[in-house]
Amino acid sequence: MEQLKQHILKDGVVKPGDILKVDAFLNHQIDMGLMAEIGREFARLFGGCGVSKVLTIESSGIAIACAAAQAIGVPALFAKKSKTRNLDGDLFSAPVHSFTHGVTYTIVVSKKFLLPSDRVLIVDDFLANGQALAGLIDITRQSGAALAGCGIAIEKVYMGGGDRLRVLGVRIESLARIASMDESGLTFCEE
Amino acid sequence: MEQLKQHILKDGVVKPGDILKVDAFLNHQIDMGLMAEIGREFARLFGGCGVSKVLTIESSGIAIACAAAQAIGVPALFAKKSKTRNLDGDLFSAPVHSFTHGVTYTIVVSKKFLLPSDRVLIVDDFLANGQALAGLIDITRQSGAALAGCGIAIEKVYMGGGDRLRVLGVRIESLARIASMDESGLTFCEE
Repeated sequence: MEQLKQHILKDGVVKPGDILKVDAFLNHQIDMGLMAEIGREFARLFGGCGVSKVLTIESSGIAIACAAAQAIGVPALFAKKSKTRNLDGDLFSAPVHSFTHGVTYTIVVSKKFLLPSDRVLIVDDFLANGQALAGLIDITRQSGAALAGCGIAIEKVYMGGGDRLRVLGVRIESLARIASMDESGLTFCEE
Repeated sequence: MEQLKQHILKDGVVKPGDILKVDAFLNHQIDMGLMAEIGREFARLFGGCGVSKVLTIESSGIAIACAAAQAIGVPALFAKKSKTRNLDGDLFSAPVHSFTHGVTYTIVVSKKFLLPSDRVLIVDDFLANGQALAGLIDITRQSGAALAGCGIAIEKVYMGGGDRLRVLGVRIESLARIASMDESGLTFCEE
């Protein structure tokens, strides 16, 4: 998606530790015009798939999930990061390892809001190792709902997480695909 | 706002510990039609105030901030809950005590995104003790930005947090004002 790539080139900053800061427009301050465009793009890509719910993970996925859900005309739902492992029976849960923070946390979704009749579009701001996405897919499968696919704003293709899920048959559409990056700059994959 | 009150009466659940669960439509699963209406209502209430940025706190404020920011036509910005007290100089920060979780955490906003030229609308899903709102007002004042006002979805009026801030001159508009609640039901303030 050209508009997102232009935002990344203009306002994204590559930091040591393989970090791409997009806090000027995507996950701290949020450019609502860009966000609406991202929502419309996911609606275009997945609108014909019978999506009934858009699932993401707090916090930085929420704005994207809302934009996609609004464009498709269905509810958004966000998994919460739980501090406790003592979860009651009313929750689907899955472990997610964060390489950035070096911890494993548990994500949870209320069983009330994912049903076997649902068709789920999972969205997130970043796809790198694919740990968060795998956790959201796990929760979707526990619920018995169908997975329509995954919509990602920025994929770090060189990390391999996306392709490890694609070979399992998961449809993943990423709006900006980064082939390589370091502090001197970044390059997108050729489409 | 009648539509929000009807959602609360239909799908809200009062739990022990003065908890009103609105996870079916506001802060876990999100009803995007309701959210767009909330955004338009805040645009109606604050649209003439020269708002340049809508500020909230992760996670449950983000959907509301996006809706309001989209309706007003300005960026959204969300304060992050920091796990560390070792903050660098590029952040505004304020302590927030959570009575629900019995902890004090630090909320942070990048100095890049709040300027003295900004006029800030603060929004959140709930107002009870007013601790989170006070933290966001503190950060706004540190930045030198003007505070246009605060827009709240659900105010627990009987907790007094809203009125403690109103007597300091803060304009707070709440869309559903709860006069009292317990497990047998809840009543709204008469308007």
